[in-house]
Amino acid sequence: MLEELKKKVYEANMLLPKYGLVTFTWGNVSGIDREKGLFVIKPSGVPYGDLKPEDMVVMDLSGKKVEGRYNPSTDTPTHTYLYNHFSEIGGIVHTHSPHATAYAQAGLDIECMGTTHADYFYGPVPCVRNLTKEEIAEDYEGNTGKSIVEEFERRNISHVYVPGCVCKNHGPFTWGTDPGNAVYNAKVLEEVAKMNIYTKILNPAAAPTPDYMVDKHFERKHGPNAYYGQKA
Amino acid sequence: MLEELKKKVYEANMLLPKYGLVTFTWGNVSGIDREKGLFVIKPSGVPYGDLKPEDMVVMDLSGKKVEGRYNPSTDTPTHTYLYNHFSEIGGIVHTHSPHATAYAQAGLDIECMGTTHADYFYGPVPCVRNLTKEEIAEDYEGNTGKSIVEEFERRNISHVYVPGCVCKNHGPFTWGTDPGNAVYNAKVLEEVAKMNIYTKILNPAAAPTPDYMVDKHFERKHGPNAYYGQKA
Amino acid sequence: MLEELKKKVYEANMLLPKYGLVTFTWGNVSGIDREKGLFVIKPSGVPYGDLKPEDMVVMDLSGKKVEGRYNPSTDTPTHTYLYNHFSEIGGIVHTHSPHATAYAQAGLDIECMGTTHADYFYGPVPCVRNLTKEEIAEDYEGNTGKSIVEEFERRNISHVYVPGCVCKNHGPFTWGTDPGNAVYNAKVLEEVAKMNIYTKILNPAAAPTPDYMVDKHFERKHGPNAYYGQKA
Amino acid sequence: MLEELKKKVYEANMLLPKYGLVTFTWGNVSGIDREKGLFVIKPSGVPYGDLKPEDMVVMDLSGKKVEGRYNPSTDTPTHTYLYNHFSEIGGIVHTHSPHATAYAQAGLDIECMGTTHADYFYGPVPCVRNLTKEEIAEDYEGNTGKSIVEEFERRNISHVYVPGCVCKNHGPFTWGTDPGNAVYNAKVLEEVAKMNIYTKILNPAAAPTPDYMVDKHFERKHGPNAYYGQKA
Repeated sequence: MLEELKKKVYEANMLLPKYGLVTFTWGNVSGIDREKGLFVIKPSGVPYGDLKPEDMVVMDLSGKKVEGRYNPSTDTPTHTYLYNHFSEIGGIVHTHSPHATAYAQAGLDIECMGTTHADYFYGPVPCVRNLTKEEIAEDYEGNTGKSIVEEFERRNISHVYVPGCVCKNHGPFTWGTDPGNAVYNAKVLEEVAKMNIYTKILNPAAAPTPDYMVDKHFERKHGPNAYYGQKA
Repeated sequence: MLEELKKKVYEANMLLPKYGLVTFTWGNVSGIDREKGLFVIKPSGVPYGDLKPEDMVVMDLSGKKVEGRYNPSTDTPTHTYLYNHFSEIGGIVHTHSPHATAYAQAGLDIECMGTTHADYFYGPVPCVRNLTKEEIAEDYEGNTGKSIVEEFERRNISHVYVPGCVCKNHGPFTWGTDPGNAVYNAKVLEEVAKMNIYTKILNPAAAPTPDYMVDKHFERKHGPNAYYGQKA
Repeated sequence: MLEELKKKVYEANMLLPKYGLVTFTWGNVSGIDREKGLFVIKPSGVPYGDLKPEDMVVMDLSGKKVEGRYNPSTDTPTHTYLYNHFSEIGGIVHTHSPHATAYAQAGLDIECMGTTHADYFYGPVPCVRNLTKEEIAEDYEGNTGKSIVEEFERRNISHVYVPGCVCKNHGPFTWGTDPGNAVYNAKVLEEVAKMNIYTKILNPAAAPTPDYMVDKHFERKHGPNAYYGQKA
Repeated sequence: MLEELKKKVYEANMLLPKYGLVTFTWGNVSGIDREKGLFVIKPSGVPYGDLKPEDMVVMDLSGKKVEGRYNPSTDTPTHTYLYNHFSEIGGIVHTHSPHATAYAQAGLDIECMGTTHADYFYGPVPCVRNLTKEEIAEDYEGNTGKSIVEEFERRNISHVYVPGCVCKNHGPFTWGTDPGNAVYNAKVLEEVAKMNIYTKILNPAAAPTPDYMVDKHFERKHGPNAYYGQKA
């Protein structure tokens, strides 16, 4: 079932090592079929070199495995929660890419320091708080998804315009319109995190990009009058 | 038309991923035929892997597209402005290469900290101010070119001897005698930005290279009595 | 003799350049056959490109060479000491990987700043003190092993749950259930050292991961109810 | 003439891009035939991809070109001076490798922070002062060699035990028993400079390696009772 989507999710997973975003098996990509209410995700702990499209695991939105000989990624309940609450996303990525993870470890938002960031993320990428001991005991991975959704709600951040976050002491989650777009955003996040770290070395007091400039860059790529790229 | 120049501009564009200066489509190169008053530029948002010489777009110096099935790079008005005001340049490059972009985000000139810099840029590479909200609303990309030209005039910097700049919260622009030379300068700028960032970690108070040493290095490569390399 | 183990130790050694953990010959891997009381180690100073499985040297646990035309790694007495005192390990790795070595040079424990670390090392990776002049004169490499074992005992750290350390002004040693697992841990250590260095740039006061979160991550991979990966 | 040496110098030059020590043409290697009093050096400004053994230029120790259709490297007078005054060296390398160059730009000695350094350089690698305006006007490249030799004499550093330096605001020079060994030392210097930069981020007050430990490491590789590697 869902052979097309499995292939897409497989290919998006294989972009992670290609883009230098994972060491060993430290990442996973999923993609959803909104009509059927099913999503497809990487199996847990299988090396990228051994992965095949048919190894992908099919899950429903209640968290039940529907098909697949492997266990799904341990982070599956986080993906489930995000698909249930971020209604407009089609793919999710989790990595431990080093610069974005450094932001998670530093406990800081990834501030919008330039147009590279503004072209894809409309404002700061939030750092989501640690779970409490109780939340971890109850349902670590599910509550990770919950903490992300609550952070976006609390700060009134659009999950469509800011397609990602870093979870404190953990690492980045990004999402997008489909699995490939979610991986694209994972790579953007790693690159802007890297640029910002270099920026801090040069000027610890460097100020974020002025708002009107962020508006311009985000809108020229994603607004109703976007003029970047080619008309479809 | 301009098939030779299209090939050169295509090849110069393809050097950007080869030299590690771009992620995805975050860069563009153009080249000009001064006699015909036409320049050739990368199309907007086309991945480097798909690019072909015949995809290059031909523009005139009033900003009108003369030939090409694709939209030109969104940064085309910046290129147009620079070609109109920097009369001696034959090629222009824009990238988001990470270390040079960090300087842009830090809002700092790239100081001449050593002979690597002095061999190609005669003094500091200026950081050009942010545009105002009004300048962005009026003509973002055109006014970016204008702000660069004005910065070089205001500081009395030669655009021939200092073939590049960083635009605040944005990234580097470099230029040169032709598209390949402009890419060469883009790579030099990234390398010296990287070296300077490492230098700041070791010694935040490190002083720029003495002027007489900058003179010597620039002149042995580019002066009337240059003795680096082979006679043509 | 021990042809199977020689092959495994050879293959584990060849992972060091593949994972970017060594320059030139600056690393070595060994593996032990506990039943026979013999271990196999890389020869000293032989370039990785020239290495063959049959070049591996067989040692006994009293430090005597049992087989092999080459001298064993100069660090062999360190391996011997560790095999004699860390009874549960099957493989040992020493490298000068740059970020872990920076921690050794800084004289600091690698604090557990995130889940990447907690997935493999249960708490801080200790920095082991310098040897005294007398200890070096007496038996440098053997006493290096002794200082590691004493540090783990003094601080009551489990060498099973924390499979590695950095030796002050020297570099990292890691170990594991077999030679391949020891190399895996060497790569993890380098990656977390790198992430932590980036973290320090962003936030010098960043706090370690809360204990209950470290518990959770280590246990979901290594505890009795581990649920990461596939059942064997 | 000197076809064997040309081949060795060519091969040593080609190691520079292989080891990631040069961008474009920013480096050169030479090697000397002490009996004949002639040395062989890379031509100036020729890209590594185009280089052939027969392009190497033969020089005598008075600075006169003896054979070769190309101009020798502009840095040739520095090499000449070093061969005339460091009587025991067989090869010289100059690069702008980024981390070693950062030390040159910072104006700091590369302190011996660990055994990686101590295995090849017996103590700090000196940062050599800038030339004066007069020295540059008189003979820039020759006086660069002179300033290096004087620094080693002034500080009573052995050029055999410390086979390299960084020239302020310029970059590293290393040397060795032959061209290949000089390149080896250039790579070591870049690696230790990199490790030290990471170390400074973690602990700006980190102390150099204790002297008795430096002694031990240098001697186990290079002393009369060296026991690293295989007997020849």
